[in-house]
Amino acid sequence: MSPELFVEVTRNGTVESQHFGAAVVCDFKGAVLESWGDIEKLVFPRSALKPFQAIGVVESGASDRYALGNAEISLASASHRGEPMHLEGVTSWLARLGLNQDHLACGAELPEDEPTARQLLASGQEPCRYHHNCSGKHVAFLTTALHLKEPVANYHQVGHPVQQMSLDVISDLSQTEIRNYPMGIDGCGFPAPAMPLVNLGIAMARFANPSELPDSRARAIRRIHEAVTDKPLYVAGHGSVVSELIQVTSGAILAKTGAEGVLIAALPRRGIGIALKIADGNARARPVALLAILDLLGALSAQEKHRLRAHINPEITNSQGLVVGEIRPAASWMEAR
Amino acid sequence: MSPELFVEVTRNGTVESQHFGAAVVCDFKGAVLESWGDIEKLVFPRSALKPFQAIGVVESGASDRYALGNAEISLASASHRGEPMHLEGVTSWLARLGLNQDHLACGAELPEDEPTARQLLASGQEPCRYHHNCSGKHVAFLTTALHLKEPVANYHQVGHPVQQMSLDVISDLSQTEIRNYPMGIDGCGFPAPAMPLVNLGIAMARFANPSELPDSRARAIRRIHEAVTDKPLYVAGHGSVVSELIQVTSGAILAKTGAEGVLIAALPRRGIGIALKIADGNARARPVALLAILDLLGALSAQEKHRLRAHINPEITNSQGLVVGEIRPAASWMEAR
Repeated sequence: MSPELFVEVTRNGTVESQHFGAAVVCDFKGAVLESWGDIEKLVFPRSALKPFQAIGVVESGASDRYALGNAEISLASASHRGEPMHLEGVTSWLARLGLNQDHLACGAELPEDEPTARQLLASGQEPCRYHHNCSGKHVAFLTTALHLKEPVANYHQVGHPVQQMSLDVISDLSQTEIRNYPMGIDGCGFPAPAMPLVNLGIAMARFANPSELPDSRARAIRRIHEAVTDKPLYVAGHGSVVSELIQVTSGAILAKTGAEGVLIAALPRRGIGIALKIADGNARARPVALLAILDLLGALSAQEKHRLRAHINPEITNSQGLVVGEIRPAASWMEAR
Repeated sequence: MSPELFVEVTRNGTVESQHFGAAVVCDFKGAVLESWGDIEKLVFPRSALKPFQAIGVVESGASDRYALGNAEISLASASHRGEPMHLEGVTSWLARLGLNQDHLACGAELPEDEPTARQLLASGQEPCRYHHNCSGKHVAFLTTALHLKEPVANYHQVGHPVQQMSLDVISDLSQTEIRNYPMGIDGCGFPAPAMPLVNLGIAMARFANPSELPDSRARAIRRIHEAVTDKPLYVAGHGSVVSELIQVTSGAILAKTGAEGVLIAALPRRGIGIALKIADGNARARPVALLAILDLLGALSAQEKHRLRAHINPEITNSQGLVVGEIRPAASWMEAR
């Protein structure tokens, strides 16, 4: 099955580029409600695993032991943009553990937030490991390792107990043993398991409504819902579709990006999970496709759509500041509605 | 006709992302020798028009009048990376015309060359119009306007005589009246005409072997061949597939990128032109696809392929510096060989 046309990029009304993809909508019982393209195809969820990877630090009791607040639990499941608030959150948390930057396994990375990146360079500094979008997840895994009295070294290697615990949680949520699928290495050094897209959708549906899961896990997930709804800017950052979706819908829709065109969303009240992959891995197409699906599901009010319009139908401006084109959902989404 | 699978991005050997596209190989008589996907589909060549846009400054006599050297003629057809050599070339040329940055219609842009961009910001400076990858093309059009005693104002607007002259040249080379197709505005403010992909291939074939064109135009094109072969780093920059292809093959293959996944190549000795468009507009896939086509055509020696291996099959490294994946031509290219 070929990927389906999801998103078009136009210039003065004529299509210039096209983004294809696959997507699935699941419920928390594991049923497929809607699908587009080949949902059995393997995807690497990459950072879209972070909501599930954040469960460990809560479920293990580490978050209570170290009195993590909502900002820290949000950072645990974040691909943050390296804004000052994120750096402050990560550094103070790490210091409270008695650890420092050298304990982080991720490499140094320029903040994704361009003003912060420019300011950093203009002040003569180099990016460091704190700036890496995954640094919150790394501190969370270190927190869990400390709490469980496991070594803090090599916490990012697949053989470490905190990683094995995490793979168990991911397998439980996705209703498949992900150790049976290929495993790569992520940008930050973490194991990067692959799974069929449909299982990622199921995992997000069970994250949306965890009532089928063991009590301790369900409680941990509800704690994460609460944290990210309270501190959505810590999950990604200003201007990001993830933070703005959570913010605008007051947590009725939770979302998380993954590298290479992955985007997932959870609708806790409806017990629905959505997983989509833009085949070419481009980031610009995924919010447009997700918002088209959310619109199809009737999940957004007119007011919410208005507030999210920059993600639904982004404008393209040129170096002179002129609007020269747009990114829009393909016509098929409109017809389906 | 759907786009064809051209390029795969893998992680630890498993496909993570896919790039689809269309491509055509034409000869200088206008015949299609090979094609993949829908070659009648409109594309915006964007900066891939620059080799043709550079013809005007030479054919009009402006380049002789202002004694342009090979570096300047290369810059006229360049999407340069904003390296110090490019900035020096553009600023000194503009000064020789008695003009300055305010005469450039393009907006300010950070240099594409990352070390230069970082250095610029670290020194507390802001990017300016010189840094825009199109600034050489802009100076070339200003040079032509001065030579022809046309106004220097609004030289980037479609109604200006130098633009109309340029559209004539592009129509001649592509064997189609491009004013009949949709026209957008480019990133730098220039008119951005669309045309069927096949016509872009024909234009590049006629650029490769201009013997069917009027003498003055053919001479101008051969002058451009000579300039870019002598100064390939001025057409793009260090590490770019365009500069390295020209350099490694000593001008047996000339190439030019366009925004949104366009890449064209000319083989002057064989009178062949190649045009390809990656449907999703991603830049990482186009060199891999072009080099697969060049290999199919037997256009590269083993030694040339060795020197170009970073473009044929790029490695993906993570923030720790580990190689975690690769970009490779889809299997279909291998089967076709």
